[in-house]
Amino acid sequence: MNQENQLIEKSLKIGVCQVELSLGDFDANKQKVIDSIEKIKAENPDIIVFPECTLMGYYPADLLERKSIILDQLNVLKELEYYLKENLNPGIGIFIGGLSLNPSLKGKPFYNSAFFWNGSNFETVFHKTLLPTYDIFDEARHIEPNPLNYPQTLIWKGHTILVTICEDIWAWENLKGQSYYPENPLKHQKDSVDLIVNLSASPYWFNKQKTRLRVISETSQHFEAPMVYVNQIAGQDETVFDGSSVVTNKEGKPVWIGDLFKEEFKCFELDLLDKEKKQNLSKIDLPEVHIKPDTEEQLYEALKFGLKSYVHLAGFQKVHLGLSGGLDSALVAQLCVDTFGKENVTCLYMPSKFSSDLSDKIVKDLKNNLEFKYIEQSIQAIFEFYIGEVSTDIIPKAFGLTHENIQARIRANILMAYSNSNKSLLIGTSNKSELAVGYATLYGDLCSAYNPIGDLLKTQVFALSKFLMQEKQGLTSEVIKRPPSAELREGQKDEDSLPSYEELDAAIQKIIIKRQAANTEIEKWVLTKLYQTEFKRWQSPPILKVSQHAFGRGRRMPLNHKAKS
Amino acid sequence: MNQENQLIEKSLKIGVCQVELSLGDFDANKQKVIDSIEKIKAENPDIIVFPECTLMGYYPADLLERKSIILDQLNVLKELEYYLKENLNPGIGIFIGGLSLNPSLKGKPFYNSAFFWNGSNFETVFHKTLLPTYDIFDEARHIEPNPLNYPQTLIWKGHTILVTICEDIWAWENLKGQSYYPENPLKHQKDSVDLIVNLSASPYWFNKQKTRLRVISETSQHFEAPMVYVNQIAGQDETVFDGSSVVTNKEGKPVWIGDLFKEEFKCFELDLLDKEKKQNLSKIDLPEVHIKPDTEEQLYEALKFGLKSYVHLAGFQKVHLGLSGGLDSALVAQLCVDTFGKENVTCLYMPSKFSSDLSDKIVKDLKNNLEFKYIEQSIQAIFEFYIGEVSTDIIPKAFGLTHENIQARIRANILMAYSNSNKSLLIGTSNKSELAVGYATLYGDLCSAYNPIGDLLKTQVFALSKFLMQEKQGLTSEVIKRPPSAELREGQKDEDSLPSYEELDAAIQKIIIKRQAANTEIEKWVLTKLYQTEFKRWQSPPILKVSQHAFGRGRRMPLNHKAKS
Repeated sequence: MNQENQLIEKSLKIGVCQVELSLGDFDANKQKVIDSIEKIKAENPDIIVFPECTLMGYYPADLLERKSIILDQLNVLKELEYYLKENLNPGIGIFIGGLSLNPSLKGKPFYNSAFFWNGSNFETVFHKTLLPTYDIFDEARHIEPNPLNYPQTLIWKGHTILVTICEDIWAWENLKGQSYYPENPLKHQKDSVDLIVNLSASPYWFNKQKTRLRVISETSQHFEAPMVYVNQIAGQDETVFDGSSVVTNKEGKPVWIGDLFKEEFKCFELDLLDKEKKQNLSKIDLPEVHIKPDTEEQLYEALKFGLKSYVHLAGFQKVHLGLSGGLDSALVAQLCVDTFGKENVTCLYMPSKFSSDLSDKIVKDLKNNLEFKYIEQSIQAIFEFYIGEVSTDIIPKAFGLTHENIQARIRANILMAYSNSNKSLLIGTSNKSELAVGYATLYGDLCSAYNPIGDLLKTQVFALSKFLMQEKQGLTSEVIKRPPSAELREGQKDEDSLPSYEELDAAIQKIIIKRQAANTEIEKWVLTKLYQTEFKRWQSPPILKVSQHAFGRGRRMPLNHKAKS
Repeated sequence: MNQENQLIEKSLKIGVCQVELSLGDFDANKQKVIDSIEKIKAENPDIIVFPECTLMGYYPADLLERKSIILDQLNVLKELEYYLKENLNPGIGIFIGGLSLNPSLKGKPFYNSAFFWNGSNFETVFHKTLLPTYDIFDEARHIEPNPLNYPQTLIWKGHTILVTICEDIWAWENLKGQSYYPENPLKHQKDSVDLIVNLSASPYWFNKQKTRLRVISETSQHFEAPMVYVNQIAGQDETVFDGSSVVTNKEGKPVWIGDLFKEEFKCFELDLLDKEKKQNLSKIDLPEVHIKPDTEEQLYEALKFGLKSYVHLAGFQKVHLGLSGGLDSALVAQLCVDTFGKENVTCLYMPSKFSSDLSDKIVKDLKNNLEFKYIEQSIQAIFEFYIGEVSTDIIPKAFGLTHENIQARIRANILMAYSNSNKSLLIGTSNKSELAVGYATLYGDLCSAYNPIGDLLKTQVFALSKFLMQEKQGLTSEVIKRPPSAELREGQKDEDSLPSYEELDAAIQKIIIKRQAANTEIEKWVLTKLYQTEFKRWQSPPILKVSQHAFGRGRRMPLNHKAKS
């Protein structure tokens, strides 16, 4: 052992700051960094790790068109630098995520970077190599990748630290040998590594956690080094970021998993030497923790978190929705009450002559159980007035689709009027199964500022509702069991126009989510409907994404085309 | 001169097929290829060049999620191969664009390729190197780039032909030394090249042609070789592809420029030798042609072409719109009549008590001049019925924004009812200046299936209208000169809520189109309004793109953020 090694501590203490960040709110994010350091510094960490794009928040999307915004962020980084110089013990190293300028005139204008505070400045900068360019992510639009083979390590207190940013650890092959990336940049790292850090902004979806843990473990195992993976918390438009940060031991076993949708500030002393012995658990004996399977409870947390973030960031405190007597709107009513409190939720029931007694009863029961503000406003007279007033060149005499749609659009007018007069956001109630086949009225029941259940298949709506019925006072078995109906004409039932929801959802899973070819009659019918109704989804509100493949901005189908498979 | 060179013809005859393609319509596109070859083969071309993605059409966007579609396209390529084997003189080489499979399990699943028909098969395949990933284009989502340094040439009849696909020629630095790409793949081509072909799908925008010619000339000059650049014609959702194909001589001067929005089938005999002498014009003496500056007439052609393509591809023959008495809807009425014929256009005038006598008169004059089908349907009684019927918790007594919006939404209900009952598509009338600052009612006047003027600034609406007034019977000076107003309340004028349109448009040019920082008070006001109203544009209909930076799918701003510059 040479002299240098004798000076090296066998362990490093790492601080994890799983923080909630706000897109473009540089001052608030800077203050969050300062407050986090204040919280954690008493434990004397050697290194503190923050999530990706700490000061900017993530995902900025086309805000990256505007260089002025990146310059603002770099100014705030300078302010942070002054603060740290004045206030922090220089023995603490800090990783902060952020955008940096590509100094070349060629290539995309920015890098997605990790700035390292070395006790006196942020001059050591690392760049992200793999740029997610799929689903909602378009990093290749604005960001230049770090060149392969560009060094990604630094030495701190004698230890070699590999710095990775989010996607950089996602090129490992899956079980089928597939990878999104032709090359895995981590395989170019030839040096021995003592610790891996990953600054992340990784969105939540149901049942993702096991995949995320697989790539973290694989990275940690590859280098035989512990890993500290720090993910942000955020509700950004259609996407929620859940935290669930991870620390592994050098065997790649998770020794800590952060909570979902809650900030975490933790220090871990990690054993970084003893490579020769390859001990499973080192002198700092952190026991392995096990992932729990994703639950309905977690899914509901994701819905509440995403909805609350959207509404509050948009500057609203109050929400409202149209109750139909059906399950989708009943579930959204429960969700809104659980998210905002009954005093901030108004439900409007807008019956017509096609509304059934059962709908009336269900709505009254929900009102009694959930105690939201309630307004009943019939649309029947307005509907009849339209028919009497408007030329038969526009609304023909024979009852048909025109009449069905007008009812849905009168309801939308009333709901939007309530928005205007009460500074309340309209919350949507269309599920993913309906959206897939366009079983909804554009400018009618599709209207809303935000749709929190637009990524739930109808079968998931059933399952979540059953879970909630057992947990809470609210939904009744009546609303769960009734046959779904739009109630826009006499005796209408969803099942007259659609396959059973079990069959429909199985087809959607196969052809939309797994993107496989349509083979059966039902699958072909779903694909045809999907293609025919793209124009409705184009003009639909943002959808809270809780699956790997949601409708919304992450899906960009052409409107006019003749493809058939 | 060796024996091989003695056999080489000094010239090659190249056939250009500037064809209109239809996305995903494999059979139609295959037939188009066959018909084009039949048209042109009597001239004995040595090579025929088709546009990018010939069989698929372009831009497929997330259709590329579906491998089944690519397999369909490859099957049709096989069918074409059989046809050519049976029917074509083997001395004709053909370049066809299309998607091919990435055989590796790693990286994105497809290549964007050029298949070369060598007289017996399509086995020679080239891949696109530079993948446009900006604005409406997301090629890096699904497509793997050709590796740099991978050969891009083939020898045909003794001549070395460099094969490029669209974006491959766009990495030349601009006048400021900037390039979207860190490396220009063309600079890696060390071999002498006799001819360059480019299979293209390059969208139209106003004043683009000079930029396009610059990169074509620069490529041709770099290799001191003639170039054949073949662009498709298509109206695909928000984008129009104009053709305007180009042939240059070996000095990089254009010797032919194809027409806009019209198919072209031309043969050119190009001098490929005499490199030593560097003669400007060779024995095949094609004179240089000059670009004409873009005109209002061309812009109007683009609008008509895009609108017609959208409506017909969506399966509709008839269109309708709401006439307000203002200039935007008057221009759209003229556009629809010129595009579809007066017998296929219905204009609905839906006055309220706020509609002025001037609006009445303008609408009557338009009706007389353009002779569209006309329906007048007052909204006043319906509006008053809403107020009498709906609870004051929803529509308060004091006249305000709620009341303004309801009027716009009643009109939308009527226009959509007309859609339902007459199988007619609703055409939008919102201009880019209004859209930028959200001066429009969501689910009201923003409703339409397609907005053909959503990428025209109000000052462009004025200029185009003046041009049309001189050319045609339709628009009157009265409608051009009147002060713009939404007429949703007493005495309302746009200028009470907005800066003058000259100032507004200058600010939009600077901060939205050129993406510069906002400095003046008006620019800051526009930026604030832009950010506040993103939710309206998120749910807006598709917009016909005629500028470099349109609202619509090519712009992906977050909804909630706190950025201020």
